Amino acid sequence: MVKILAINFKAYRSSYGQKALQIAKAAEDVAKKFVIKGVEVIIIPPPTEIERLASRLTEAKVFAQHVDAVSEGAYTGHITLGMVKAAGAEGVMINHSERRIRLDEIEWIIEKSKELGMRTLVCANTPKVASSIALMKPEMIAIEPPELIGTGIPVSKAKPEVVTGALNAVKSVTTSVKVLAGAGITDPEDVSAAIDLGVDGVLVASAVMKAENPEAKIREFAEALLKR
Amino acid sequence: MVKILAINFKAYRSSYGQKALQIAKAAEDVAKKFVIKGVEVIIIPPPTEIERLASRLTEAKVFAQHVDAVSEGAYTGHITLGMVKAAGAEGVMINHSERRIRLDEIEWIIEKSKELGMRTLVCANTPKVASSIALMKPEMIAIEPPELIGTGIPVSKAKPEVVTGALNAVKSVTTSVKVLAGAGITDPEDVSAAIDLGVDGVLVASAVMKAENPEAKIREFAEALLKR
Amino acid sequence: MVKILAINFKAYRSSYGQKALQIAKAAEDVAKKFVIKGVEVIIIPPPTEIERLASRLTEAKVFAQHVDAVSEGAYTGHITLGMVKAAGAEGVMINHSERRIRLDEIEWIIEKSKELGMRTLVCANTPKVASSIALMKPEMIAIEPPELIGTGIPVSKAKPEVVTGALNAVKSVTTSVKVLAGAGITDPEDVSAAIDLGVDGVLVASAVMKAENPEAKIREFAEALLKR
Amino acid sequence: MVKILAINFKAYRSSYGQKALQIAKAAEDVAKKFVIKGVEVIIIPPPTEIERLASRLTEAKVFAQHVDAVSEGAYTGHITLGMVKAAGAEGVMINHSERRIRLDEIEWIIEKSKELGMRTLVCANTPKVASSIALMKPEMIAIEPPELIGTGIPVSKAKPEVVTGALNAVKSVTTSVKVLAGAGITDPEDVSAAIDLGVDGVLVASAVMKAENPEAKIREFAEALLKR
Repeated sequence: MVKILAINFKAYRSSYGQKALQIAKAAEDVAKKFVIKGVEVIIIPPPTEIERLASRLTEAKVFAQHVDAVSEGAYTGHITLGMVKAAGAEGVMINHSERRIRLDEIEWIIEKSKELGMRTLVCANTPKVASSIALMKPEMIAIEPPELIGTGIPVSKAKPEVVTGALNAVKSVTTSVKVLAGAGITDPEDVSAAIDLGVDGVLVASAVMKAENPEAKIREFAEALLKR
Repeated sequence: MVKILAINFKAYRSSYGQKALQIAKAAEDVAKKFVIKGVEVIIIPPPTEIERLASRLTEAKVFAQHVDAVSEGAYTGHITLGMVKAAGAEGVMINHSERRIRLDEIEWIIEKSKELGMRTLVCANTPKVASSIALMKPEMIAIEPPELIGTGIPVSKAKPEVVTGALNAVKSVTTSVKVLAGAGITDPEDVSAAIDLGVDGVLVASAVMKAENPEAKIREFAEALLKR
Repeated sequence: MVKILAINFKAYRSSYGQKALQIAKAAEDVAKKFVIKGVEVIIIPPPTEIERLASRLTEAKVFAQHVDAVSEGAYTGHITLGMVKAAGAEGVMINHSERRIRLDEIEWIIEKSKELGMRTLVCANTPKVASSIALMKPEMIAIEPPELIGTGIPVSKAKPEVVTGALNAVKSVTTSVKVLAGAGITDPEDVSAAIDLGVDGVLVASAVMKAENPEAKIREFAEALLKR
Repeated sequence: MVKILAINFKAYRSSYGQKALQIAKAAEDVAKKFVIKGVEVIIIPPPTEIERLASRLTEAKVFAQHVDAVSEGAYTGHITLGMVKAAGAEGVMINHSERRIRLDEIEWIIEKSKELGMRTLVCANTPKVASSIALMKPEMIAIEPPELIGTGIPVSKAKPEVVTGALNAVKSVTTSVKVLAGAGITDPEDVSAAIDLGVDGVLVASAVMKAENPEAKIREFAEALLKR
């Protein structure tokens, strides 16, 4: 099965402008090389960057970092699925620990995404939350213990039981949902450790966004996804 | 003094994609004709459209519909001033009734905007709120009684006392802040009525975004701003 | 199995003060008569009324309308499980459509409630949301299509498929969670219709809180719970 | 002029139950001794404790920690001014840094409180925010730099310029609003230092709520308010 390397740009200084374009191109280069080996690279930039980056990519995919659970209409300051799709996003990540949403909104967005032919990646903080979300059949769930996010302490090493717990919890509900591991992934070994636990991919952020050489880092992560 | 015509795209179907581009071009055409007469046209599109539209405009200006009160960093799903500035926004609208923010956030964003050389338009629902915001010296305040937004009942006719109350309240605090009238402005006469009350411009939305001929509507509004 | 009659006081004028006490006493009188027949009456007053009402009741139980997902500490303006328990609440209702919370908060509160020996009633707007919540094993789930709340159009008649859908969805996950029907229940027949669909009880609000004779209404509802 | 000693119970373990009652009685004892000297003691407990504590106090006053900006009605899980008034609160504190609200809500609550004859204490994080709030004429404003709350580093010593800045900012708008200093007040000298800066009182929390001898601490603070 295809392995997923998802890169959350967050709101880092490198998430927009020239640096964002450079990281997107690095992701594209790696995507081109690894697509036939079975790795898909997804970048998740801020909404202001979706159109500019998506229009320059072919192999790397673009997801939005968040959408609001509203349709078209009088919703000043809201971001809709229609907007991010029109800008070139192929999917949407929702419920990241830095932007949690309500359960009824998660259901609404997953359903609406399916209608619009958009892909979905939903973040979960615990195995039980992961299984609750799995019932709604998004394409992917990323398990991220919030206390490890941004720490450089990889979930796959510090809390492997959270990853395996999430895997078991999700698989007991459905086998059609991919599970990614996130939080604290810094080195290729962290990726390998996650793969060893059985995940379908990883969700990374600062390790790439703050890297001196983002392309090298992305490539190392892609290679590590395939090692086992 | 220059009169302001601010067009809030909201999240209408016409706020993104081909239709948004058409309205932005119509705004640009009107802006080119009216800039020497003393009318400034500002469009306020969703974040996904800022870069695409701003890169095509010279006379019409672009503001963001909302920003979050955070700097760069680990803020997945947030929109920062740095992002919208990099995408080409010259300013930001905040505190619209469909996206209210807290008072401490209003102060933070106005201060940070000044540091970054960005312009600010802050919405207020009552004269007292308008004067509270005026103390923080944004460039513009738009007074919009929420109960009239989207009704087609213009504030300048239905509640002229709210507009004059806001004008007096703001002017008692500072003379350096422009006051716009919003909510329910549908026809050129509504714009004229607002100008008669003493405002420096208008904030419109559905009248343009749902118009069969947006350019004609924008031109009529621009003309009405100058009539008195 | 015991049938549940849960009365949400909301923030109606009758939810506090003299009128609230009168309704609580009516609930107590009905509870005393119906407990041996297998009906449990639960009142759900505002936090300011929990201690005053709970200290006067023996058969009717008291639940809180909401708690925040925080423990003890520097949380000004928050309501904790510890607070409502100390005041006499036996359980807590969470995620009502007028006070939705996030999925991670739902899990936290259910877990913490179990630790503290408190009962849980979680509201859900759709069958899928109901099943997601069922995975977390609260004692009860109330299915309430938000569009019917306060309308006087009973869910059991207007949208029986939502009720049966929720029943099936919950039962497919666990048989240990009770399902209540809510939204629009006005007359005893609405209660009977809900029971016919297979629910374990009902969640009512305005029908009691705005009744001229609350005790008569509560008694009628209790009787209807037993008719089938 | 009467000096104010306001004690925010927050959600500390001592904020409810037996310990809360003990602290309330200590406040009452101090209030009885100091009222003729010109000190008013206000306790600010959680909503679940208002009725129980207020019914036992005569000289010490009770304020709520927060209310929602809604009237009576279908607002499950919300706390209204009517509820806290009925429970015995004489006023309400709003906009604490741990429970910030929007500017339009601040105006609504201040206006509604005046209608209901309730007193208001509004928290502010900066001098500019304090002056914005002063325009709405609450009875009191507490200036609390959030970064000092709970640190034990008193604002009156660490950031005296924030206190004097707030005093000047508020007094330039109105002379009828009292200004309290909060955040980090631990010892009687911190209170004296605040009084020296010109404030009308102090807002304290952990220093009392976590004290081994709350009554001694409250008495020391009351004495310090009068020393200069």
